[in-house]
Amino acid sequence: MTSIVVCPSPILYPFYQQESDTVVVVDILRASTTICVALQNGAHSVIPVASLDEARSYKTKGFLVGAERNAKRCDFADFGNSPFDYSSDAVSGKDVVFTTTNGTQAIDIASGCRCLYVGAFVNIEALANKLVGAKRIVVVCAGWNNRINIEDTLFAGALIEQMSDRGEVDFSADSAQMALLLWQSSANDVMAVVGKSEHYARLKANGVEHETAYCLKQNTVPVVPFYTDGRLIIKS
Amino acid sequence: MTSIVVCPSPILYPFYQQESDTVVVVDILRASTTICVALQNGAHSVIPVASLDEARSYKTKGFLVGAERNAKRCDFADFGNSPFDYSSDAVSGKDVVFTTTNGTQAIDIASGCRCLYVGAFVNIEALANKLVGAKRIVVVCAGWNNRINIEDTLFAGALIEQMSDRGEVDFSADSAQMALLLWQSSANDVMAVVGKSEHYARLKANGVEHETAYCLKQNTVPVVPFYTDGRLIIKS
Repeated sequence: MTSIVVCPSPILYPFYQQESDTVVVVDILRASTTICVALQNGAHSVIPVASLDEARSYKTKGFLVGAERNAKRCDFADFGNSPFDYSSDAVSGKDVVFTTTNGTQAIDIASGCRCLYVGAFVNIEALANKLVGAKRIVVVCAGWNNRINIEDTLFAGALIEQMSDRGEVDFSADSAQMALLLWQSSANDVMAVVGKSEHYARLKANGVEHETAYCLKQNTVPVVPFYTDGRLIIKS
Repeated sequence: MTSIVVCPSPILYPFYQQESDTVVVVDILRASTTICVALQNGAHSVIPVASLDEARSYKTKGFLVGAERNAKRCDFADFGNSPFDYSSDAVSGKDVVFTTTNGTQAIDIASGCRCLYVGAFVNIEALANKLVGAKRIVVVCAGWNNRINIEDTLFAGALIEQMSDRGEVDFSADSAQMALLLWQSSANDVMAVVGKSEHYARLKANGVEHETAYCLKQNTVPVVPFYTDGRLIIKS
């Protein structure tokens, strides 16, 4: 039986992790969505880095770099954190270095785990299929500056529902039950709930709130980013 | 206008706190409920301490001591963490030293704030009345070993609802919205939801699950513990 717990903030990861976990890192708005898009559009790999210094260093070596802080693209970077930046023309065949306010830090914190995937609504079914048979799954929500957020927790609930549809799942942990209750109370109009979120307000302040609907649509980018040797790739 | 945020684990407090906050520390099962009962039953003060060593030290000095770890009373202590331990006969007129697995640590973490109250379902209306006019409220959930839990988050949602009934309240923070959604989806049968919680299972393993219903009943202990000079008292 697969058990699932939800770690609502990267800072709490040490209190949720166990040996042999499979980790799903989630940053719905927008890093995990964007990583899926970049790989779907042919990027050879996405290299997540936690700091801007690392990203700048890669840039000077000639890498393509996506870099965002506080919902804005960083000046030195080729791309920001919009999934629409990462077209086939721009990324096909390339390694793309990527740093964002929260998502890439969450990957960094969990990178020592046995098996790490990136999850988003755009790849939820493909991800759930990949997770079948895992012993224990920790969904690590990227949140915002270590605070919890609605959209990542909602996704965790949706993933628990998907996993339950695929076999017997233990979601008795309080964190998992809460995420599932939140999802069930919101699933009939996810946009209405996320439209009231802090992150939606930030995207709106930057004129990119239309990206939210894209990030909430399910199964439009059915690839499952897998972390290995410091890179996210599509596992063959 | 009063704004409310919910800090779902004591570890996250630094990411939620601001200057001039009013903090409500919550550990529904059972520390915050028990503190209310002790004061209601005439204890002169409850002295929360984070460590067992401190509690033992007070004991050797002749203080009454309540001490619990992992849902069990500690051998050296006069009382555990059951609200039923703190009868008038036992505590009236006394200072009671108190240490528990999570609740007293949460008080410790937030003890530098401007104004700290202890909240529980048993005192929710009295507490909400006291909070009217506060600028910013942080509800600090004690959780369990730094993980989030259902019952404390539910209480946070219930308190937001109570505050909304008393005036205009800003609960736009994601943490507050999630707590309120959880409460609204569970309010018609709170016991059913908490009955599936990790903490209920722990209480059951120790044969004291019947205390849960007491801890979920509203307004049976209408006192509001206030923290000052290292003690919890009823503010006159």
